Amino acid sequence: MTLHPSARSSIDPFRVMEIVAAAAERESAGEDVLHLEVGQPSTGAPAGAVQAATRLLADRAPLGYTPACGIAPLRDRIAELYYDRYGVPVETERVIVTAGASAGVVLSVLAAFDPGDRVVVTEPGYPCYRQIMQALGIEPVPVRIGPEDGFLLSPAALDTAAESAPLDGVVIASPANPTGTVYDAAQLTALDRWSRDHGVRLIADEIYHGITFEGSAPTATGLTTDNIVIGSFSKYFSMTGWRLGWLVAPPDLIEGIDRLSQNLYLSPPTLAQHAAIGAFGDTVELDAHVNRYRLNRDRLTATLNRIGVSDIAPCDGAFYLYGNVSSWGIDSRVLVDRWLDEIGVATAPGIDFDPVDGHRWIRWSLAGSTADVTEAAKRLESWAVGQHRTVRQQGSV
Amino acid sequence: MTLHPSARSSIDPFRVMEIVAAAAERESAGEDVLHLEVGQPSTGAPAGAVQAATRLLADRAPLGYTPACGIAPLRDRIAELYYDRYGVPVETERVIVTAGASAGVVLSVLAAFDPGDRVVVTEPGYPCYRQIMQALGIEPVPVRIGPEDGFLLSPAALDTAAESAPLDGVVIASPANPTGTVYDAAQLTALDRWSRDHGVRLIADEIYHGITFEGSAPTATGLTTDNIVIGSFSKYFSMTGWRLGWLVAPPDLIEGIDRLSQNLYLSPPTLAQHAAIGAFGDTVELDAHVNRYRLNRDRLTATLNRIGVSDIAPCDGAFYLYGNVSSWGIDSRVLVDRWLDEIGVATAPGIDFDPVDGHRWIRWSLAGSTADVTEAAKRLESWAVGQHRTVRQQGSV
Repeated sequence: MTLHPSARSSIDPFRVMEIVAAAAERESAGEDVLHLEVGQPSTGAPAGAVQAATRLLADRAPLGYTPACGIAPLRDRIAELYYDRYGVPVETERVIVTAGASAGVVLSVLAAFDPGDRVVVTEPGYPCYRQIMQALGIEPVPVRIGPEDGFLLSPAALDTAAESAPLDGVVIASPANPTGTVYDAAQLTALDRWSRDHGVRLIADEIYHGITFEGSAPTATGLTTDNIVIGSFSKYFSMTGWRLGWLVAPPDLIEGIDRLSQNLYLSPPTLAQHAAIGAFGDTVELDAHVNRYRLNRDRLTATLNRIGVSDIAPCDGAFYLYGNVSSWGIDSRVLVDRWLDEIGVATAPGIDFDPVDGHRWIRWSLAGSTADVTEAAKRLESWAVGQHRTVRQQGSV
Repeated sequence: MTLHPSARSSIDPFRVMEIVAAAAERESAGEDVLHLEVGQPSTGAPAGAVQAATRLLADRAPLGYTPACGIAPLRDRIAELYYDRYGVPVETERVIVTAGASAGVVLSVLAAFDPGDRVVVTEPGYPCYRQIMQALGIEPVPVRIGPEDGFLLSPAALDTAAESAPLDGVVIASPANPTGTVYDAAQLTALDRWSRDHGVRLIADEIYHGITFEGSAPTATGLTTDNIVIGSFSKYFSMTGWRLGWLVAPPDLIEGIDRLSQNLYLSPPTLAQHAAIGAFGDTVELDAHVNRYRLNRDRLTATLNRIGVSDIAPCDGAFYLYGNVSSWGIDSRVLVDRWLDEIGVATAPGIDFDPVDGHRWIRWSLAGSTADVTEAAKRLESWAVGQHRTVRQQGSV
């Protein structure tokens, strides 16, 4: 035998990381970059979180392991969030704190699915779902969504997906990455009912909850306790690098998730857990971020519509616009490189989110400052004008 | 179909967590507990780490995602550690920062092994190796070690393990949990050679390096670049709850580990990475902890020898004693409960580390204060005297 990498380590990389690296290189060469490629807030943790962390550090607290499922006061506080925000009572023992929502996804699929199980993911959708599943022996079953269905999964689409072989799970995200689309109560209930009727585990990624522009997004937590709901401190709470998230777990999976968490993670980061408790009081600071994302959305949407980006997904939450750029006749991977190179605007190529049709799509992040997003919109518009001029000139030759 | 937990989520829990919970319950009832059950330093992060973290918080730094493999200055600093401590040059690109050594184990086995691969683990040994493997479809092949071989794996034992079917990997730990045993240079070289000769991937868990009592432990990093070496900031650097570790990866696995890390973890905790850079200068503070562990080892070893604990593993590093308690004729799980209940001394039952023979063994942690360890030794001695008296009295009836 010879040593070799495992087959399962040949999952796709996150291609946007190449843009992140290229943007960093451009910056270190002294040129400016407007960062519309990144999937994270441009802001730090809120004041209450920073204060709580600073206090613990000043006390030289040992900050050892916590219980694998998180410290009790944080689990309590997260449970309360569901009551405060949605009027849904959640038992504290169902709240499991995780090392970021990434750990939440890994623990969910490990606890719910065995190798060979078939689990629906949307295309476009967050790429790590399918790549985590592939690494863990689960078969992702892609279901295409797009402009014709409002970029939302429907029971009819699940019926079709289940035709070839039974399904074991469905992952939905609301608000979704890369589209910003939100399932309304009726749509969510329909998916929940379909899952229950078919004995299929529904995993609802709700990490962008709190960042919504038309009222709050309905939560799958209120529907049936069979669903797994994934939450995070990285988005609304603006604590990305603290690596903290949570699950609201079905009662039958709590023990398995606890065991997996003990063995694979030991415990979520301790300082982050204490800091997170301090973050809940900072709604004024955090809601101001949401208002900024809304303003950024409105400005950039207007520009993209004007310059020929089509089929922009209805962005009711999260902080992304996702649109079709095929009117320029340029593969979006090339377009992303050219924009970075020619006008210093970094964006994410659709291929990360949609391996089939992503070369026609681009994701713009709205998480930066309004000044940056406004400037990016201006540069994109100038670029588009120049591009159309070139096309016209070439056409007249 | 009905919903059900996955088969792979039925791995063993960490049983010591039950003792941790029982000890906490006893404390909240107002009774004292001497914590010799925990596998972590009783101290906080060193001053330089706390200062670096405090400074970043004061600046309200955004603390977003970092590259999945960690920030460059930390990777550089870890690479330097190998040169400073062992004279071994390590290329920075081989250093991959992970969300604790737990993530290091998960990434190592995912990148190196596919489902069905057979990987040797020792019994006794750190239980999460085998449980992580089971959750990820890898077959742990237990090899028994004990007093007769100095609690060390040997090429001869590997020959025997390979008889029934070829092996794909071997995991060793030096210094080891729960035994504190260290492979000397010749023993490590022999295992490295055996692995190379058999096309088997050697994973060396070196998370307790820095905590050694007879000179520094040899590192597998210096032998061949095919080995995976796991490091951690949780033990010597006393930063347990910060969840930060690293891998020194073989060149052929770097890309796969990077992709897996991007998808399963996104990035290690950001504040912890910056804090860790600050920890490297604090050797005086950190070496004082090691001296305390040595003193605790000597005091407790003397007591355990006196009260009939036999076959205590040669503790040359880490912060545990592991000994055979069968002279009392009481299952170690019962003994652990009784000690907590009767004398307020919490310990870890051997069954966590050795599913076959662990009911005769107990692990004592040396990571607490010397006052606590000394008091625990005193209480154990009194308990043993009382126990012998009872046995004698019962014998005379």
